[in-house]
Amino acid sequence: MKALEEKIKAEGRVLKGNILDVGGFLNQLIDPAFTIEMAEEVKRLFAKSGVTKILTMESSGIAIGFAVAAVFNVPLVFAKKRKALNQDGKMLTASVHSYTHNSDYTATVSADYINENDTVLIVDDFLANGEAMRGLIKIIRSADADLAGCVVQIEKGFQHGGDKLRAEGIRVEALALIDSMSYEEGLKFRN
Amino acid sequence: MKALEEKIKAEGRVLKGNILDVGGFLNQLIDPAFTIEMAEEVKRLFAKSGVTKILTMESSGIAIGFAVAAVFNVPLVFAKKRKALNQDGKMLTASVHSYTHNSDYTATVSADYINENDTVLIVDDFLANGEAMRGLIKIIRSADADLAGCVVQIEKGFQHGGDKLRAEGIRVEALALIDSMSYEEGLKFRN
Repeated sequence: MKALEEKIKAEGRVLKGNILDVGGFLNQLIDPAFTIEMAEEVKRLFAKSGVTKILTMESSGIAIGFAVAAVFNVPLVFAKKRKALNQDGKMLTASVHSYTHNSDYTATVSADYINENDTVLIVDDFLANGEAMRGLIKIIRSADADLAGCVVQIEKGFQHGGDKLRAEGIRVEALALIDSMSYEEGLKFRN
Repeated sequence: MKALEEKIKAEGRVLKGNILDVGGFLNQLIDPAFTIEMAEEVKRLFAKSGVTKILTMESSGIAIGFAVAAVFNVPLVFAKKRKALNQDGKMLTASVHSYTHNSDYTATVSADYINENDTVLIVDDFLANGEAMRGLIKIIRSADADLAGCVVQIEKGFQHGGDKLRAEGIRVEALALIDSMSYEEGLKFRN
């Protein structure tokens, strides 16, 4: 999505340690009109997939996840990173390793919210190593639901999580796919 | 908002320990069309307040916060409950006690995202003791921004956080205000 690539080039900042700071328009300060534009692009990509639910991970996936759910007019489900106090009943869980925080967490969704009649589209802000994505895929499979595919706003192609999933036959789309990134040389997008 | 009260009565579950489970339509499984209806009600309430930004707390406030930001067509800012690795620069912070988790956290927003020219509307899902709300108000004040007011989807009136804020002259609106709630007797809304 050209508009997103342009925005990342203009407003994103590559920090030391291969961190891309897009907090100013995509993470912590969110432009709703642009987010809805991105959601409409996601709708174009998965229009024929029969999506019945959107699944995302708290908390940075919720804004784009909500926008996509609104455009598809289907419910948004988000996985929590810890069990909520008011969650009883059967849970779908997956252990996820976070390279960012160098720690593990358990992604949790109530079994009431995804079932075998669902076709689920996973939406998230970033895809790097693909650990969070694999956790969400595991949750969908443990509910016997169908996976329509995965879509992210920004994929860090040089961390290969997306390509490994594609090699397994999973449809993975990125609105912007960065193939290389460094503090010294900036960003290169995949054509 | 009558439609929300009806939905809470029909689908909410009062659990032991005064916990209201609305995960099935408001928290973890989110109905985007109904969320946008609620956001339009918020717009009616604060239409004349000159709102320039919406502020919410991760993660349960983000969906309604995004919907309100979209209806107002202003940016959404969300406070993180811990400092992100890619946050450098000046931070606005407030210590918040969570009665739910019986622990403290530091709500954090980059000082780049709210400034003295902003009029900020705080949006959250729940208001009970008002601790999270006070943290967000502190962040707005430390940025020298104006506070338009606070609006929540559900206020637990019997925990008095909202009324204490109102007594201090802060405009607090709830789309549904529960005055009493128990496992045995169910819910009563404030008229």
